Amino acid sequence: MNHEFRVIGKRQPKIDGWERVSGRGKYASDIYLPGMLYGRILRSPHPHAKVVKVECDRARSLSGVRAIVTSKDMPSFRWHKDMPILTDVARFEGDDIAAVAAVDEESAEQALDLISVTYEALPFVLDAEEALKPGAPAIHSGGNLIGGKPVIAQRGSIEKGFEQADLVYEAGYHTPLLQHVTSEPRVCVAQWEGGKLTIWDSTQYTFRIQSAVAQALKLPMSKVRVISEFVGGGFGDKGGPERYNVLAALLAKKTGRPVRIELSRQENFLSAHHRYPTTWHLKYGVKKDGTLTAIYAKVIADMGAYAHFDGASGALETMRSVYRCPNVKVEGYSVYTNKPEGGFMRCVGHPQAQFAQEAHMDVIAEKLGMDPLDLRLKNYARREDGDQDRKLPFSSIGMEECIRKGAEAIGWKERWHKAHSSPGPIKKGLGMAVHACRHGAPTEPSSGIVKVNQDATVNVLTGTADIGGSQKTMMAMIAAEELGVSLDAVSVTSADTETTTDTGGSSGSRQTMTGGWGIKLAAADAKRQLVERAAQELKEDKANLELRDGMVFVRGAEKRISLQELMKKAPGSLIGRGTARVPRGVSFHTFSAHFVEVEVDTRTGTVKVLKLIAAHDVGRAINLLATENQIEGGAIQGIGYGLSEQQVFDRTTGLCLNSNVLDYKVFTIKDIPEIRPLLIEPIDPHGPFGAKGVGEPPYSVPAPAIANAVYNAIGVRFQELPITPRAVLNGLLKA
Amino acid sequence: MNHEFRVIGKRQPKIDGWERVSGRGKYASDIYLPGMLYGRILRSPHPHAKVVKVECDRARSLSGVRAIVTSKDMPSFRWHKDMPILTDVARFEGDDIAAVAAVDEESAEQALDLISVTYEALPFVLDAEEALKPGAPAIHSGGNLIGGKPVIAQRGSIEKGFEQADLVYEAGYHTPLLQHVTSEPRVCVAQWEGGKLTIWDSTQYTFRIQSAVAQALKLPMSKVRVISEFVGGGFGDKGGPERYNVLAALLAKKTGRPVRIELSRQENFLSAHHRYPTTWHLKYGVKKDGTLTAIYAKVIADMGAYAHFDGASGALETMRSVYRCPNVKVEGYSVYTNKPEGGFMRCVGHPQAQFAQEAHMDVIAEKLGMDPLDLRLKNYARREDGDQDRKLPFSSIGMEECIRKGAEAIGWKERWHKAHSSPGPIKKGLGMAVHACRHGAPTEPSSGIVKVNQDATVNVLTGTADIGGSQKTMMAMIAAEELGVSLDAVSVTSADTETTTDTGGSSGSRQTMTGGWGIKLAAADAKRQLVERAAQELKEDKANLELRDGMVFVRGAEKRISLQELMKKAPGSLIGRGTARVPRGVSFHTFSAHFVEVEVDTRTGTVKVLKLIAAHDVGRAINLLATENQIEGGAIQGIGYGLSEQQVFDRTTGLCLNSNVLDYKVFTIKDIPEIRPLLIEPIDPHGPFGAKGVGEPPYSVPAPAIANAVYNAIGVRFQELPITPRAVLNGLLKA
Repeated sequence: MNHEFRVIGKRQPKIDGWERVSGRGKYASDIYLPGMLYGRILRSPHPHAKVVKVECDRARSLSGVRAIVTSKDMPSFRWHKDMPILTDVARFEGDDIAAVAAVDEESAEQALDLISVTYEALPFVLDAEEALKPGAPAIHSGGNLIGGKPVIAQRGSIEKGFEQADLVYEAGYHTPLLQHVTSEPRVCVAQWEGGKLTIWDSTQYTFRIQSAVAQALKLPMSKVRVISEFVGGGFGDKGGPERYNVLAALLAKKTGRPVRIELSRQENFLSAHHRYPTTWHLKYGVKKDGTLTAIYAKVIADMGAYAHFDGASGALETMRSVYRCPNVKVEGYSVYTNKPEGGFMRCVGHPQAQFAQEAHMDVIAEKLGMDPLDLRLKNYARREDGDQDRKLPFSSIGMEECIRKGAEAIGWKERWHKAHSSPGPIKKGLGMAVHACRHGAPTEPSSGIVKVNQDATVNVLTGTADIGGSQKTMMAMIAAEELGVSLDAVSVTSADTETTTDTGGSSGSRQTMTGGWGIKLAAADAKRQLVERAAQELKEDKANLELRDGMVFVRGAEKRISLQELMKKAPGSLIGRGTARVPRGVSFHTFSAHFVEVEVDTRTGTVKVLKLIAAHDVGRAINLLATENQIEGGAIQGIGYGLSEQQVFDRTTGLCLNSNVLDYKVFTIKDIPEIRPLLIEPIDPHGPFGAKGVGEPPYSVPAPAIANAVYNAIGVRFQELPITPRAVLNGLLKA
Repeated sequence: MNHEFRVIGKRQPKIDGWERVSGRGKYASDIYLPGMLYGRILRSPHPHAKVVKVECDRARSLSGVRAIVTSKDMPSFRWHKDMPILTDVARFEGDDIAAVAAVDEESAEQALDLISVTYEALPFVLDAEEALKPGAPAIHSGGNLIGGKPVIAQRGSIEKGFEQADLVYEAGYHTPLLQHVTSEPRVCVAQWEGGKLTIWDSTQYTFRIQSAVAQALKLPMSKVRVISEFVGGGFGDKGGPERYNVLAALLAKKTGRPVRIELSRQENFLSAHHRYPTTWHLKYGVKKDGTLTAIYAKVIADMGAYAHFDGASGALETMRSVYRCPNVKVEGYSVYTNKPEGGFMRCVGHPQAQFAQEAHMDVIAEKLGMDPLDLRLKNYARREDGDQDRKLPFSSIGMEECIRKGAEAIGWKERWHKAHSSPGPIKKGLGMAVHACRHGAPTEPSSGIVKVNQDATVNVLTGTADIGGSQKTMMAMIAAEELGVSLDAVSVTSADTETTTDTGGSSGSRQTMTGGWGIKLAAADAKRQLVERAAQELKEDKANLELRDGMVFVRGAEKRISLQELMKKAPGSLIGRGTARVPRGVSFHTFSAHFVEVEVDTRTGTVKVLKLIAAHDVGRAINLLATENQIEGGAIQGIGYGLSEQQVFDRTTGLCLNSNVLDYKVFTIKDIPEIRPLLIEPIDPHGPFGAKGVGEPPYSVPAPAIANAVYNAIGVRFQELPITPRAVLNGLLKA
């Protein structure tokens, strides 16, 4: 691809920016329908309790109440096999017991107060290690170890690996429970029209809601429409269908009126997904020269009361793939506890894993007397190593460039120093960490439709939900580039199951690859048809023609015909469609290296990040501005993860202590240092225009880099996050 | 096609029937947006006047008024070349002078009263023949004959034809100005979001509004979205863009708020389209045996104040095509008068032409002493005659079967009698008429998208507006039949320029052919992809596979795989797309013959239609129920045309005297006789599943059949419509 791009690669503001800043964009929370009822969910006040009796008579007699449902009214459908829609055993504080629909929010709220539930409190367990012990309270009938046995995987011989090692280092790490804190909490509106259900939801994946709700209510998918035109943040919390979607649909069915369920901020804290806490035991073997000979990683993943997925396996991926190592054994325990359901949060489990692994590597470097930079350069998995389990080379790799350019940008070689070596009470330190993972790789489904109008302007139909990552803008840019038209000529319809096609969720950093590929192929299909028309009109061979500036040119000649003229040759719309399959024989990974400088005030314990260099292999940036924004956004969240955020539960009562944004501290723009995204563009031959995804990776790297920088500043190792002022002062005290 | 159909051909109620009867279907008149303003148009009270001055200050100072526009604020864009959006010369009573937008309807109405317009009255002309005379008031600068000269076309030699004739009969006919009287008057809501305009309009053709508004406001089509999900009747009045669409868009732009313009019933009478009046002079030559040797037809078409199209040419088509005749000359005069703009009404001009031609043929039969049935059988254009001007054979023809089966159904041979031969004051008579035209033929654009969901259910995306003719249901049936799935599995999105593709307007009886073909091809494209997957899975040759009952079967064997399993083989949606081109080398016509029995009360002049047999060549009925409904609906309107409807203008003032449904009598269900649709299905090889269109033809035939039956009853010929009781009594008096 050596031609110059006309649209992609530019610094392009969001094409729906006006709607976003003017308040005119229709988020699910903006949907108010005539005759709409307000749904509310009655939540358990106990971390673990049997629901003995639910008395609804008083609530039902309230004038504004239109319907009340309990576990008895639910279909037999289960989420993730173990979760009923409404439950008769509360398994965490906030578990869904009953739901009401009323004419206004006040009546709905009042009705919740009037429902009388008799609970029989059960013993509870909050800690995953405790939950695994014999005699621990059983949260589900099959025991607290999800799946009944650990997931163990290995390659090579771990024993042999340790034998070959000159140094074996083992240590434990812990990461806390974190919240997404999306600007728009979970919200949906459900409306029936005859036998057809429409749901407006603030979601990353309309098609999964469509299929799950269809399954739950035994409807054909064609009779369920899910729309998510604007989404106020997702970060993994809104990756798919949730109980409240079915509840809204059922209440709407029962009442014959649209029903809106909007979770409060507190409900979102108590009952929505979160980043699941993990406890790690790592044991790595290295030779004197730094060569890794063995990696052993064990993780206990606290998945909360319901098993959304196998969090332990998800988290262990980076231990198997970031570094070249022939002998690896990983051991994962996904565990039930009486906490809300663990979920995805800007990744599956890599932010947890990379904190542990990169802190661990920093210690090993120190023990070997090596620059931690050199330890990474020595060991990172090369292109030919690729996916060492599946034995597939990487499709492209920019890891070394990420490390070298990032180091150069922060002045690593000149400025990195021995730990705890700066004088005075305020100490500076540098730290680094790397990351590599399969997020941002092509997956299926991947499809799209591009419609060329009679005036040669373009409508893009994509299933991709734009959750703030400029996905709509990217689709428009890809279509414009491929068709050689201006971006102004392109309009995008997104994330409507009725009129667009499934491109997978806006999660897994995938939309550049899935939605993007789909639209690129659809545009190419439209282009092919236009070129065929042009070849006829110009009496030229198709192979000699090229599209640019709204024209089809004969290559290297003046002869041309405009797309508008071509469109006039046959009346009506021209349809391009595309479906991409995942290429085989290669493994797609994204790579990154972050470098931070921190300042630690040893009198107050405050850690201030002064600068963050975020070097990312992005294949090729489709939209420079959006790519940098993704990196900056991820890094900001990553810094909060390192220094501030954690949801805390009371060990005595089992209740959450900080289910609000005052007590759960999310970093704001005031807390944010200079972040410098550094784009490494090796051009992936399998990405659309060479691109890779970049949504999640920026999150995984800042926290370990900060922990390492803090060590570099004050000589105290942190094996647990967040590194709060109190933790710093405690650490200094112990040291 | 010898396999049995599973979906098409059935008596299928509307798939959106629930929405229609429950009031939940979103017609444009149901669109109320937050902050929406109400637009109203100030209309001329004069049939012809110069607008000297428009003073808006008092109206502007009214508290609820948000914007006022006059001709000075309009873009230079012209509708149909001669019509400004707002005018500074009023050319008919109701012409658009100014428009206001206000916070409620009352304020908007009040503002109209407060706008002070100084008019300079000009002489006016209502009658087209008068308008052609020298010295008649000039309505536009180029003279009142639209195009400056008559449109004359001929084949063969008219002189030679008359020489060969044994009988030459000439006579004049006249048809009145008629209104569509749609249940939903014209209405639209325009909303801007940033640079993007959305219009909800009650229209038969969203894509034409999209392109015209884009052109008027100099916008790319991709920035204009037009939606018309439900339409309360069209009949040609809503065939495309109108001034109020641009006015709503401009007022919305000016105020930054959505604007709704809804025409009152009176406004619809005064300013919307209508069936243009025609005045005919026919001169036909025949041999003794009935063979036509010459046809001469001259028509003066009264097109009102603006030239929407060349109405004379449109009307003359059936003189050139219904009958086999080597020598034909037609002469058309489309004329400006100071009446509202003439338009399409359930056809271009055939209902006018066929009244004249079929009444004329009835006289000729009588003069020859022939049964009028035999005169038609002798002369109708055969398959090989086809389009006698373009020299193309018909694609299929059911004319003879229409005539013979219709005659049989009414008992023509036994019951048709000499005119005015029944005793007593109440006289019965039989009459017949035939019709053939190119409406219902395939046209371009013709396209569609069919999306197969993960559970093998189907979403159809079609540009087709469902104006009450069951178009959505038909598209669903075609997709279901082609894909071998049940109709319940199919959902339809229609007439949204953003997400569907252009299939031409829902006019010209075309949607079976354009939307239908598009969806059939799109479904076939999806099927092809499914069969490819099935061939792989079953390890069978594609040619051996067939789809039915949601399965792909190996022909003549038990081996099969369900579509659901196939869809699971690759995740996501499967996209089928189709674009049809008009086949060359044949001419597509639809054919019909109506037979009526009337009862005329010679004391009151009342004509009562006792029975109407409507035999129609429909190719193949996709939906038996909808096809019969179309025929019944057209016939009902056709009876009203024959007996009751006419819009009347005062010759002294130039003003309309009956712009309401009390004084303009539309027939209701109480006035309607037994109508028996008789479907003739010759199976057109070029139609989807053999179908042809049927929307308009049923309208063209009842009026002449009634006129002929009335003659048969009382021996009085009517050369003018409607045949009101007063006309009957006058006729009897004269006779």
